[in-house]
Amino acid sequence: MDERASLPKRVIMITGASGFTGGHACRYFAGLGMEVAGIVRQSKTLPAIDGVRYYCCDLMDKRRVEELVRAIAPDYVLHLGGKNSVPESWTNPLLYMETNVLPTLYLLNALRPLPACRVLVAGTKAVFRLTPPYRPPHPYSLSKSLQKAAVMSWSELFGQAIMLAEPSNLIGPGPSTGFCALLGRHIAAAERGEATGAFRISSRATRRDFLDVRDAVRAYGMMLEQGTPGGIYSVSSGKEHTLEEIATLFIHAAGTPVAVDWGSDEDSAKDEARQNAPGSGVPGWEPVIPLMTSISDILQYFRTGGGASI
Amino acid sequence: MDERASLPKRVIMITGASGFTGGHACRYFAGLGMEVAGIVRQSKTLPAIDGVRYYCCDLMDKRRVEELVRAIAPDYVLHLGGKNSVPESWTNPLLYMETNVLPTLYLLNALRPLPACRVLVAGTKAVFRLTPPYRPPHPYSLSKSLQKAAVMSWSELFGQAIMLAEPSNLIGPGPSTGFCALLGRHIAAAERGEATGAFRISSRATRRDFLDVRDAVRAYGMMLEQGTPGGIYSVSSGKEHTLEEIATLFIHAAGTPVAVDWGSDEDSAKDEARQNAPGSGVPGWEPVIPLMTSISDILQYFRTGGGASI
Repeated sequence: MDERASLPKRVIMITGASGFTGGHACRYFAGLGMEVAGIVRQSKTLPAIDGVRYYCCDLMDKRRVEELVRAIAPDYVLHLGGKNSVPESWTNPLLYMETNVLPTLYLLNALRPLPACRVLVAGTKAVFRLTPPYRPPHPYSLSKSLQKAAVMSWSELFGQAIMLAEPSNLIGPGPSTGFCALLGRHIAAAERGEATGAFRISSRATRRDFLDVRDAVRAYGMMLEQGTPGGIYSVSSGKEHTLEEIATLFIHAAGTPVAVDWGSDEDSAKDEARQNAPGSGVPGWEPVIPLMTSISDILQYFRTGGGASI
Repeated sequence: MDERASLPKRVIMITGASGFTGGHACRYFAGLGMEVAGIVRQSKTLPAIDGVRYYCCDLMDKRRVEELVRAIAPDYVLHLGGKNSVPESWTNPLLYMETNVLPTLYLLNALRPLPACRVLVAGTKAVFRLTPPYRPPHPYSLSKSLQKAAVMSWSELFGQAIMLAEPSNLIGPGPSTGFCALLGRHIAAAERGEATGAFRISSRATRRDFLDVRDAVRAYGMMLEQGTPGGIYSVSSGKEHTLEEIATLFIHAAGTPVAVDWGSDEDSAKDEARQNAPGSGVPGWEPVIPLMTSISDILQYFRTGGGASI
């Protein structure tokens, strides 16, 4: 079974390059010998990676997106840019609608003069059905559901080679803001003797599908290479774990006792239904990184200061 | 049966006030004794109507929308603003996504501090299902389908009293760009002896539901008064006519012979399916303006210069 994508040495444009998945994607595709154009919103210190060149661009700026696409002339685009915090989406719902929908279309429109370019947009499993009755769980879900419908429809309208990935919860070393990263950071702080109190987990029975981000990035490469235009691909480990199971694994790997403040189980059924992932939809791909490796790497990332290297 | 809405004398904000439906809506609600705040994008010559005050605002300007809503403090909002030309949407699809989706959410977000405010958004029957396989007929339909999903979801997320109207083809005197207006303008030009050639109609068998805009505006008033939050209301005459039938009625009403260049019938089945309106969903409302009155009024509008009065 092919474990790595074998894209020819060509140009890939990656948006959200300074993010958690973006960092891994830049390393992975540069490692395949491709020229990587990493798009970041703000100029900041970024890891120097052979084969990766960074470009600064706010994707809300339609003209700049057009200029950039013309200058880079990518063969592949991996669109990871956007916002993905559920709590923040309640505080500023408009920001989520602005960031996750229109900039994606600006990018797709700018790519119309390059019909051979293959595009993968990173969606999420946290979408809902855009038919009556409309029951969005949160504004983040609404923004990503609208993005999905917009992207798939755009692909149909203009005949571009656009695919959508729907990953489950991605974990691994790097600047994630997910459950495992928060727990890893907490444990690393406790190991350094910093007073942190108990780690709060809202519901021990909540089940989630966790997948290592490096497995996901490999799947993205295979989709860019082999995916069917207009295709929607699920990317998940196919295995669910309760938060209690995950926390137990982390606590066993910790070098110091860690207290957990368990919340009520009330919302777990809701979470369960939403997170029940249907396995992988990428032909020839399967996850290879064991859960314990992800957990060790997360702890190592935060033990070494979080950001020095991924 | 109640033929007019009986909204108490309060403040209604109407976007797209300089448009075809907007002009009729301003007159109608002012005629009910309400204070009408008509929102127009650009300052231009607008009809002076007792009870109507115009405000200039580009709905893409989020801050200005917030200021305006605070200043007007509406009890009702009728959102008619947006773009609605299918051919233009092919030429500039991004403009349609920008104009029809985000500004609607800017408006709804600005209204969150006014939970008693009742809002009606004007949609269209030309929407498609935002589920796989995604088959938008044109970018205009995509923009309005995304608007519909966004509006209905927003209503659910934030508990605002928002309703959606899905009107059929609105006709009547005024600056419309629809089939009947184009034919009416052509006939008026022919009557003035201006050389215009034959009027081209793509398919004589295409069936459409035409409704007088003044009947529609009355339905909007009843929805604003009595509609259920989250409700989607069809507003149509319930009667379909072929373009040939409509053209024949116009030609009979013309004061001079008018030539028609009939196109092929190839696309008529598609149109038929899309335009097959399910009648009215507004309790207590039914259309009262006969088709011949609409046609006479359209001809009269263009005979008198188009714009002098509606």
